[in-house]
Amino acid sequence: MGQAPSTLDGAYMLHQIFHVDWDSWHTLKDKKKTRLQRESAELLRAWNSTQEGEDSAFYHILGHKGDLMFVFTRRRAEDLALVERQLTQLPIWPYLEKGYSYFSVVELSMHGTMERYRKILADQGLEDGTPEWDQALNVMLEEDREVQKARLYPQIPHDRFLCFYPMDKRRGEVKNWFLVDPRDRGKMMAAHGKIGRKYAGKVSQIITGSMGLDDFDWGVDLFAQDPIHFKKLIYEMRFDEVSAIYAEFGTFFIGCRLELDRLLEIQP
Amino acid sequence: MGQAPSTLDGAYMLHQIFHVDWDSWHTLKDKKKTRLQRESAELLRAWNSTQEGEDSAFYHILGHKGDLMFVFTRRRAEDLALVERQLTQLPIWPYLEKGYSYFSVVELSMHGTMERYRKILADQGLEDGTPEWDQALNVMLEEDREVQKARLYPQIPHDRFLCFYPMDKRRGEVKNWFLVDPRDRGKMMAAHGKIGRKYAGKVSQIITGSMGLDDFDWGVDLFAQDPIHFKKLIYEMRFDEVSAIYAEFGTFFIGCRLELDRLLEIQP
Amino acid sequence: MGQAPSTLDGAYMLHQIFHVDWDSWHTLKDKKKTRLQRESAELLRAWNSTQEGEDSAFYHILGHKGDLMFVFTRRRAEDLALVERQLTQLPIWPYLEKGYSYFSVVELSMHGTMERYRKILADQGLEDGTPEWDQALNVMLEEDREVQKARLYPQIPHDRFLCFYPMDKRRGEVKNWFLVDPRDRGKMMAAHGKIGRKYAGKVSQIITGSMGLDDFDWGVDLFAQDPIHFKKLIYEMRFDEVSAIYAEFGTFFIGCRLELDRLLEIQP
Amino acid sequence: MGQAPSTLDGAYMLHQIFHVDWDSWHTLKDKKKTRLQRESAELLRAWNSTQEGEDSAFYHILGHKGDLMFVFTRRRAEDLALVERQLTQLPIWPYLEKGYSYFSVVELSMHGTMERYRKILADQGLEDGTPEWDQALNVMLEEDREVQKARLYPQIPHDRFLCFYPMDKRRGEVKNWFLVDPRDRGKMMAAHGKIGRKYAGKVSQIITGSMGLDDFDWGVDLFAQDPIHFKKLIYEMRFDEVSAIYAEFGTFFIGCRLELDRLLEIQP
Amino acid sequence: MGQAPSTLDGAYMLHQIFHVDWDSWHTLKDKKKTRLQRESAELLRAWNSTQEGEDSAFYHILGHKGDLMFVFTRRRAEDLALVERQLTQLPIWPYLEKGYSYFSVVELSMHGTMERYRKILADQGLEDGTPEWDQALNVMLEEDREVQKARLYPQIPHDRFLCFYPMDKRRGEVKNWFLVDPRDRGKMMAAHGKIGRKYAGKVSQIITGSMGLDDFDWGVDLFAQDPIHFKKLIYEMRFDEVSAIYAEFGTFFIGCRLELDRLLEIQP
Repeated sequence: MGQAPSTLDGAYMLHQIFHVDWDSWHTLKDKKKTRLQRESAELLRAWNSTQEGEDSAFYHILGHKGDLMFVFTRRRAEDLALVERQLTQLPIWPYLEKGYSYFSVVELSMHGTMERYRKILADQGLEDGTPEWDQALNVMLEEDREVQKARLYPQIPHDRFLCFYPMDKRRGEVKNWFLVDPRDRGKMMAAHGKIGRKYAGKVSQIITGSMGLDDFDWGVDLFAQDPIHFKKLIYEMRFDEVSAIYAEFGTFFIGCRLELDRLLEIQP
Repeated sequence: MGQAPSTLDGAYMLHQIFHVDWDSWHTLKDKKKTRLQRESAELLRAWNSTQEGEDSAFYHILGHKGDLMFVFTRRRAEDLALVERQLTQLPIWPYLEKGYSYFSVVELSMHGTMERYRKILADQGLEDGTPEWDQALNVMLEEDREVQKARLYPQIPHDRFLCFYPMDKRRGEVKNWFLVDPRDRGKMMAAHGKIGRKYAGKVSQIITGSMGLDDFDWGVDLFAQDPIHFKKLIYEMRFDEVSAIYAEFGTFFIGCRLELDRLLEIQP
Repeated sequence: MGQAPSTLDGAYMLHQIFHVDWDSWHTLKDKKKTRLQRESAELLRAWNSTQEGEDSAFYHILGHKGDLMFVFTRRRAEDLALVERQLTQLPIWPYLEKGYSYFSVVELSMHGTMERYRKILADQGLEDGTPEWDQALNVMLEEDREVQKARLYPQIPHDRFLCFYPMDKRRGEVKNWFLVDPRDRGKMMAAHGKIGRKYAGKVSQIITGSMGLDDFDWGVDLFAQDPIHFKKLIYEMRFDEVSAIYAEFGTFFIGCRLELDRLLEIQP
Repeated sequence: MGQAPSTLDGAYMLHQIFHVDWDSWHTLKDKKKTRLQRESAELLRAWNSTQEGEDSAFYHILGHKGDLMFVFTRRRAEDLALVERQLTQLPIWPYLEKGYSYFSVVELSMHGTMERYRKILADQGLEDGTPEWDQALNVMLEEDREVQKARLYPQIPHDRFLCFYPMDKRRGEVKNWFLVDPRDRGKMMAAHGKIGRKYAGKVSQIITGSMGLDDFDWGVDLFAQDPIHFKKLIYEMRFDEVSAIYAEFGTFFIGCRLELDRLLEIQP
Repeated sequence: MGQAPSTLDGAYMLHQIFHVDWDSWHTLKDKKKTRLQRESAELLRAWNSTQEGEDSAFYHILGHKGDLMFVFTRRRAEDLALVERQLTQLPIWPYLEKGYSYFSVVELSMHGTMERYRKILADQGLEDGTPEWDQALNVMLEEDREVQKARLYPQIPHDRFLCFYPMDKRRGEVKNWFLVDPRDRGKMMAAHGKIGRKYAGKVSQIITGSMGLDDFDWGVDLFAQDPIHFKKLIYEMRFDEVSAIYAEFGTFFIGCRLELDRLLEIQP
């Protein structure tokens, strides 16, 4: 039976996909279109506090899955509920229709780290599960939180393209990630991360966890200047052990970043 | 082959998810919005008897799965049918559109208890399945019902966040919960419950059963002040044996509690 | 490889689920509502012949799956097609929208019986598959049809609650009902039936077959005064061998019986 | 590994399911309804060439899956595209809404035949895969096409009821039809056909292939005067080896034949 | 564990399926229909640069899955986003409704090639994974890109029929393509390709990859003058090892090529 690794959790994240009612939109005069977009942009900027861990980004979505994707990060979940209610008052809202969405929280996995911490705690003569053990662990985790602050409350990268998809680790009748020995899980994740690092400079990522928050276990955001890098990265990973055997994917959304003042215009 | 454990059943529960037609709503003047919300709240309060086992709660739902969730508990199933018909006459009803729903009944599992009762009855020389055995068992179960009244007819906790999801126990071709030896089922459920109790004070829960009532076997309601506790709890449980091997989940709904008088307003 | 058991087939049955456009309905004056309901009820009564094997019943459906369920039985399938076309002319039809439906035929399984008949025919020296064997079998089956007439052409019970669900027997790669030895199938079904009989007086049922007629193999209608009996029955059965290993369920619909003259009113 | 059997292919076939907007339809006066139906029927008759392999039939569909089914056969696929565009100009078209459809081609399986032909060719000293072998095979297949013309370009039977369903042969991880030894496939199909022939005079069929044309591998049309024969046939087949292990079914549509001049009227 | 083969990637490709609102369209006068189609065609032609790797094609889709399919290839992904926004301004756009879509990139598989290159590099004494190895490999791949330019940036063939479907290679618990030994994968793909080449002159194809871009791993476009060739090809392939065991298919779309000036007219 597997053992739950700890995670560090940061900002809450909401992805929202919208369809646009282009027919109604195009009945408007250009001047009105410009005004509605500008006023909406002003509101979206105003709502977007400059606090660490709070950001937003806006994309054109390729294909029939949607026309627009809004991405918000907030330190408190209730502020994402607030954003949702605020959006309904945007001047461009009457031209939008809800598509998909995803709610998750920025997560740093502690696969390797926890192994090391357990060893340190054992070396200190502490027994797993005792209050002393818990406390000593928490001290180390809090230090990690401080060190990892920039990764736990990230700014959304400004690359031209976004690839978002939710995913599970398989819990099949034969192949079940959650029953794998923790050490083997750690090894597989390390090999997986190694492939990711080969794409440093081309692809950056934000990993969010969503167990108990949404329908998959994780949400993955990849950022790049050209989507060919998404394909090459995912393609190569598809053959590594953890992806080949255990990864189960939801829908892939490819976004092309939009200027906030011209969300419904032809860009560039 | 498995053996059916008894359960104690309490209040019937109905979860209803609604989408809001924000465009139509926002065509109304603020004064009218306030009035429609207030009148709806008065009706919802009036319908909400103060009887034990009858309660209601109202949430904003995160993401595209819905905008509002209404939760009702009633002692009689027909009173939930009544509620459904009454809702169609709410002043805010024309702005709501049906999304998902879930019908279930508060259930206390008797995994450990039944084992013990069987032993007591056997010690009394009673034979399983005889009228005497049934009668003696019912006496003990009735006592339990009395003792557990507060849990069978619970008030809905007032925490800020709700996490609702339906779930099954797997009936796979290889891994099948309903064929597991009752003693092993009991042990796994005990280990599972132990994780839950670690979150006491942070997360409370209402478990409802829905075999023969709705499309999954159980409905789970978790309550907390911050959804991060849902994630941590579900994450840790995902690695325990009964969840890792046997749990199959439906959709997760995250609700943020709303003041009844301002269901369609920006809160807080 | 399995061998097909015979069945006795009776009345055709159509379940129809409708959503109600409550907004439009509630724009009507009470007087008009009353009239439309009364006129619709008169038509529904008129169409409902008093012939054996022809009946109808009307339910409020709990949850988002629908608002109304109509159930019709007819001796001839074409008369259900006729009913469908007639319904479109009901005065309340403009307020209804099609949801789910299910088409099936009342079926009595001959699991045990066929075993016995085969033995009788063998004892008479008849060879399986010969015209003499077929004829002698048909004589016995016709006698059964006569004896079972009330069960093949049942009246729909008047209990307050209905539980309808379609179901399959599993045809998995490992567990496949249709490859099970006929004797073992018979034994499992007998044990299954035994549980059902424990609920006599609390739950009655109509079993319909739908292979070649609709998307599942069977439709099950349970009738009771309180849906808690549905839960207890299904819960207990979930642990018997045939259900645990081989049952695959569609959607569960819980209906609360409606007075025909007030289909769209708050009841009771 | 399996070996692909040859098939003989005949007429292309298009099944189209439509929902009817009965509310709009019933706002029309009876006289106009009669006229629109008659004019539509005239067009449908005019488009229905009397060429061999070109036919059409019209059905009422039972249940929520649709209200009407149109079935067309044409010698050329482009003529089915033409039919689709023509239909949008029918006077009754504004009252129809697209439901499901299925595109396939009449197919005669050569399971047994190919075995025999291979033997004949081998006896003639021809080597499999050589141009001589191909040519000699084609001569035999062309003779078959001529002999089977009536089955490759069939008229649609006039029985009162139609049962249409698409189906696959399973390609599971354990049970995979396409890996079965050709001889075993042939034997299973022969046993399967034997059951079908027991229903001669009660049920007739048209088998169409749709690999590369639509989402399942085959489409099956059964025709009978009473749908009870569909149930008995499918029920019995469900227990034969090829169906029990390898058949995977799509949706079942039950149609009740309509007079062309009264497609939207109560019949009979 | 499998090893990722390299691919050569060319033009980005977008398939878009639309439904047509024929009722609204047919309210227009013929003259207006002609004008809207002609003006739309002019725009579509203007947007269709003559650059290598940029093309477009337009099809009538058979069945309920859609009425029209637009296919675009572009060298840069952002130009497909541009096309999507431009389309919303077509004069015929108000009569179109989004159906399915697929985003992918032309891909040449290097199954056999990579094996050979690895050998060449090893023979040169280079070690896998070193910068020297990577550089020498890239030189060879760039040469390939130049040689394969016409296949990486193809014109869309002008055949009358198109068959488009997305597909995955199976990642089952037992049968998992991505765990197969690279040499075995290469052998299976070679045998698969051999079947394809038998249809040279009858069926041509464009293979696109979509891992990380859309919901399946690949998109397949087949082109032929008669769809019977699609069926024969897919049927024969269904029995080859790689398809029989590992192929998992999405929806099949059959298109019949349309003249650009008469997209909404009856053709031919």
